[in-house]
Amino acid sequence: MKIQPKNKRNLLKAALGEIPSDLCIQNVKLVNVITGEIYPANVFVYEGMIAHVEYQDLTKDLDKAKEVLDAKGKYMIPGLIDAHEHIESSMMTPRNFARCVIPHGTTTVITDPHEIANVVGKRGVYYMHEASEGLPMRQLIDIPSCVPSVPGLENAGASFFAEDIAELAELDRAVGLAEVMDFLAVIHGEDRMMDIIDAMDKKGYYLQGHAPYLSGRMLSAYLCGGPKTCHESRTGQEGLEKLRDGMFVDARESSITKNIEDIWKGIKDVRFFDHLCLCTDDREADDILHKGHMNDVVRCAIAYGMDPVLAIKSATFNTAREINIENLGAIAPGYVADMLLVDDLTELKPSHVFFGGQLVAKDGQLEVPVEEKTYPLEKENTVVVKPLTIQDFTIQAPIDNGTCKVNVMVYKDLKLSSTLLETIELSVKDGVVQLQDTSLKYVAVINRHKGHDTIGLGIVKGFGTTTGALASTVSHDCHNLTVVYDTPENALLAANALIRCGGGMSAVKENELLYVLELPLAGLMSLKPAEELAKDNQKMKEANRILGLTEMENPLLRIVTLALPVIPNVKMSDLGLVDVNAKQLIPLFA
Amino acid sequence: MKIQPKNKRNLLKAALGEIPSDLCIQNVKLVNVITGEIYPANVFVYEGMIAHVEYQDLTKDLDKAKEVLDAKGKYMIPGLIDAHEHIESSMMTPRNFARCVIPHGTTTVITDPHEIANVVGKRGVYYMHEASEGLPMRQLIDIPSCVPSVPGLENAGASFFAEDIAELAELDRAVGLAEVMDFLAVIHGEDRMMDIIDAMDKKGYYLQGHAPYLSGRMLSAYLCGGPKTCHESRTGQEGLEKLRDGMFVDARESSITKNIEDIWKGIKDVRFFDHLCLCTDDREADDILHKGHMNDVVRCAIAYGMDPVLAIKSATFNTAREINIENLGAIAPGYVADMLLVDDLTELKPSHVFFGGQLVAKDGQLEVPVEEKTYPLEKENTVVVKPLTIQDFTIQAPIDNGTCKVNVMVYKDLKLSSTLLETIELSVKDGVVQLQDTSLKYVAVINRHKGHDTIGLGIVKGFGTTTGALASTVSHDCHNLTVVYDTPENALLAANALIRCGGGMSAVKENELLYVLELPLAGLMSLKPAEELAKDNQKMKEANRILGLTEMENPLLRIVTLALPVIPNVKMSDLGLVDVNAKQLIPLFA
Repeated sequence: MKIQPKNKRNLLKAALGEIPSDLCIQNVKLVNVITGEIYPANVFVYEGMIAHVEYQDLTKDLDKAKEVLDAKGKYMIPGLIDAHEHIESSMMTPRNFARCVIPHGTTTVITDPHEIANVVGKRGVYYMHEASEGLPMRQLIDIPSCVPSVPGLENAGASFFAEDIAELAELDRAVGLAEVMDFLAVIHGEDRMMDIIDAMDKKGYYLQGHAPYLSGRMLSAYLCGGPKTCHESRTGQEGLEKLRDGMFVDARESSITKNIEDIWKGIKDVRFFDHLCLCTDDREADDILHKGHMNDVVRCAIAYGMDPVLAIKSATFNTAREINIENLGAIAPGYVADMLLVDDLTELKPSHVFFGGQLVAKDGQLEVPVEEKTYPLEKENTVVVKPLTIQDFTIQAPIDNGTCKVNVMVYKDLKLSSTLLETIELSVKDGVVQLQDTSLKYVAVINRHKGHDTIGLGIVKGFGTTTGALASTVSHDCHNLTVVYDTPENALLAANALIRCGGGMSAVKENELLYVLELPLAGLMSLKPAEELAKDNQKMKEANRILGLTEMENPLLRIVTLALPVIPNVKMSDLGLVDVNAKQLIPLFA
Repeated sequence: MKIQPKNKRNLLKAALGEIPSDLCIQNVKLVNVITGEIYPANVFVYEGMIAHVEYQDLTKDLDKAKEVLDAKGKYMIPGLIDAHEHIESSMMTPRNFARCVIPHGTTTVITDPHEIANVVGKRGVYYMHEASEGLPMRQLIDIPSCVPSVPGLENAGASFFAEDIAELAELDRAVGLAEVMDFLAVIHGEDRMMDIIDAMDKKGYYLQGHAPYLSGRMLSAYLCGGPKTCHESRTGQEGLEKLRDGMFVDARESSITKNIEDIWKGIKDVRFFDHLCLCTDDREADDILHKGHMNDVVRCAIAYGMDPVLAIKSATFNTAREINIENLGAIAPGYVADMLLVDDLTELKPSHVFFGGQLVAKDGQLEVPVEEKTYPLEKENTVVVKPLTIQDFTIQAPIDNGTCKVNVMVYKDLKLSSTLLETIELSVKDGVVQLQDTSLKYVAVINRHKGHDTIGLGIVKGFGTTTGALASTVSHDCHNLTVVYDTPENALLAANALIRCGGGMSAVKENELLYVLELPLAGLMSLKPAEELAKDNQKMKEANRILGLTEMENPLLRIVTLALPVIPNVKMSDLGLVDVNAKQLIPLFA
C-alpha cells in the first residue's frame, strides 16, 4: 500500500528542481532510520511528500524552495507512529486526541476502535473514521475483529461478523484487522474467526494479533492462523520467542501496562530488530499531557537501554513495514513528509512537528487549528439499564447461614491485569455471602446495552480498593457497567450516578458520592479537551486513592480490565465468572 | 500478500500437535534470519508450511510427525530467493532452468520475462507462466514494464501499454511490475509510463526499478515516481546513496556484471541492512552448473566480507519483504516450508533442498521428476528477416573518398557494458567508411520482428573482438539480430546462420563459420538441458576468444548489451545510434 502524492507529475518536477519545492528544511542532522546513520542534510518538501534529500552539497538549490527553514543543526526524525492503540482509552474524541498528541510528535496512529464498536457497533467505527477526517495527523483504522471479544461469554452492544468487517474495511483509512484477541478461536479454527481472517486476507490487509502468554505450539498455531503482530508480551522470554517465531513484537508502554523494559532485557542480544515496534495501546489524557505519547514510549525504551536510533526506527520505519505502508516512516524521496525536529535524541521533545510537510506544532503548541465539529453520537446516552435495586447487587448464597465455598477472581499483583482462580470459604448471613476482610470485594457487571439486562455477580480478591464502591462504564471490551464494592448500597449509588450522566467512572464511600468522571460519549469518552479532562482524571484518581488504591502509580484504569475475558486466567462478565483459557463460564459457588 | 495453506484448519491442528505433521527435521542449527541468531531446533512441516519450530525441548513431540529426518546438526537456512532475474538469460526453458538451479538451493526467483515479451509479446509472458506451472520451485513473475525498453528508439516484436500489463498482472504468480528501465519516462512523468505505474499501484503490486548511475535529484525523481528497487548499482557510492534514499539495493552478481564487492565496500559501515537484497539478473547455464546460482551469489557476498547470516538474510527474508510476500523467506510457524540444509554457511552447498516441505534435491541432484512438456512456441521460428545482402552491412559515407567524422560508440573497459560517445575521423574509400584499426568494428542491428525491416548501422570501438563477425539474436531488450563485424561478407555469413536456425549466436572468421549456438526458442533459449547447453556455450565462448575476446572471464554475453538503450551513454538500435541520456537518435556522421 502506498500513500499517493496529490499530483505526481508536479512532485517529479519538484524533485528535479524544475519547479520550486514548498519548503526546504535546511541544516538538519538527518536520522536515517533505513541505514541507521545520522548525517547533515537539507530536506525538500512538495505537497506533503519528500521531494529530495540533499546531503552531498548543502549549499545547493536553496533557491529551489518557496520557503527555507533553518533547523540550526537539530536532529530530524520521522513522525512517530503508534503501532497499536485505542483512541477511546484516551477518553478523548478523535479531534481532542489529535490536539493532544500532535505536539508530542505522534503523526500516525494505528487505532482499533473496538471500544466504541462494542457499545454502538458499526456506527462507532464510522464515527471514529468521520470524526478523524481532515486532521493534521493520520489516524489509520484497524477494523475490530472481536466484537464482542469472546462471543458467548459476554454480551456487548454489537456483534461483528465477516460481512460487517468486510464492509468496514472499505473505509478510506482502513489498513488492517485489529487485534485478534480471541486467540482460542484462531487456534481452534472456529468458523466465524476463519471467515473474518479470510475476508481481510483477501483484501491484502495485515492481521494484527493479541497473544498474551501464548508460547510453544499454541503460539505456532496462532501464527499459522494468520495474525502476525502482538502487543501483549510481558516478559523478555515472551518477546524473544515471538520474535524468533516471526511475529512483530509491539512493545507496549501504556498507562496501565509497561512492558518495554522486560521485553528489551529478553531480546537485546539478538542481531536484527526488523520486527520490533513500539506502541501505547491505552494512554489517558493526563499521562499524554504530562509525560507524552509515542515520544515518551521511545524515551522509555532508550532509558531501558535501547539505542536511540533503533528505538526511533521501532516507532517509525518498522511500524510502517508492519502495517504494509511502503512510503511512511522514513525521510527519503517519495515518502510522506511527516517529520520532527528535536534537540536531543533521548529527550525527544519536538520543537517542530511536520505532518504532510506542514508545520502543525511548535514547541509543544499546535500551530494549526483543529476545526470544532459535533456528531449526533456525541449527544446520545448509550447507558441503557433498567432501574436497579439493592437486590441486584446482593449475592444470594445457596444456604441461609454458615459458610460456603466461592470461586473468587484473585489479583496477585497490583501491576498485573491477569488473575488467578481461587476457591475461598466465605460466611453466609441471612442467605447473603459476606466479605470477611477488606481485600475481598463484590463485583457486579451490569449489561448496559439495549436489549440486554444480564447482571454478573462475583467476588474479587486483591483488586486494591479497601472500602466503598468504584464503578465504570469503561470496562473492556464490552464496556458493561462494572462495579467493585463493599456494600450493595454504595454500589447502587455509584451505578446510578453513571446511568444518569451517560457513563463514565464514579466513586462512593460510606454512601457519599466522592466523584463522577463524566464520559458521555458512548460511556467511554469525554467531549472535553485534554487539559480539562486531565484535571477531571486527577480528581477521579484521587477518589480511587481514597478507596484504597494508593499504591498504583495510575489507579484510574485499574477497573477497566476486570471484565476483559481475553486476559488470563479468570475474569468477570455480565454472564458471571469466566474461565478465560477454557472459554467457559464458572459457577460462582464451588 | 500471503501464500495460503492448502487447509488452514488442518495446519492449525498440526501446529497444536493434534494431528501428525508430515515431517520433522530434527537436530538442525536453525539460522533465524529474523533475529540473526543460530540455535538448535526441530522443524515440523505440514502440507508445505512450517507448522511449528521447537527449540525449547528438542526431545519433545518427535512422535508427532509421520517422518523424522535427522539433520545431524547441519545448518538450516531458508530457501534462497533471487530478487531479480531473467530466466531467458540462462538460455534455458523455465523447466530446464528449474532442474538446474534447484540443486543449488534456489527455491524462489522473481523473474522478469521481458526478453521473450520483446520478441513475441504477451504470448511470451503467458508461455513463461504456463511453462513454470507445477514446478518444484517458485517462479514468481514481474510483469515487463518496458516492452520495448525505450519506445521510439527501437522497434521490438511488441509494445506493452497499461492495459496489457494490467491483463498480465492477473496471472496467478504475478507479484510486481518488472524493472522500470525507462527511467527517463518515469522522471519526466511520460503518460504511458505513468499509466503503467498507476495500474500496478492500484493492484497493490511492488514496482521494481532499474536506475543505473542515477543520483541526486534524478534519483529522487525516480523514487517519487514509484519504483522502489534497483539492481543496477555499480559502485559503493551508488549503493550507499540508494540505500539512504530508501531504495532496495539488489546487489547483483550476474554472468556479465559483478557488483557486490564494490557495493559492499560502500555500504558496509551502515547499521541496518533491511533494504539489501541479492540477485543474479542474468546467469547462463555454464555458470549456474559450475559455480552455482543464488548460493554462489551469497558465497561471493561472504567472500567480499559480508557476514554470512546477513548475506543469507539478504537472499531470503529481505527479498520477501521487497516483493511483499509476508510468509516467505524465513523459517517460522506459518511460513512456507522452503528450506535448505548446509554443512557450512560460507560454502552453501545444500545437501538437502526442501520446497514446500518436500525434499526436491539432495547432494546436488534433483530428487523429484520435472515433467517433460512441450509448447507450440518452442517450435516457432521467430527470426523474421528479409533476405540480406552485402549492401545491408555496408556503411555508405556522404563522400566518395577522403575522411569523414563519425559518431562512434566507445567501450573504455571490457568489464563495463556502459559506453561513451566519441567522434572519430575515418577514411572513406569508394563511398564506404573504412575501419583503420582492429579496435574498431562495424555494427549492424537488424530488426528481426514481423512487420519491421529496419537496420541500424554504426561503428563501435573497444568492443573487444579483433577480427571476424559475431552475431546474436540475444540482444537486450528488443533482441534484434546484432552483428559486430570486420567485413560485410563475414557479417552476412554470421547473420544468415542465425536466420536459418531460428536464432542464437554465431561466430565467423575469414569467411568461415566457427560455431553456431542454436537458441530456437524465441531466438533466446535452447530446448536443451543445462549440461548439454553448457557444453554448447563453452564452444561458443571459445569461438568468441578466437575472434579476440580473450581477456573476459565470460565473453559469451559481451554482445548482448550492445543494443540496450537504457545503459548509458550511447547504444545502437535497429534505428541507429542512440543517445541514452537524451533519449534521441544521433546521426552517424558528425
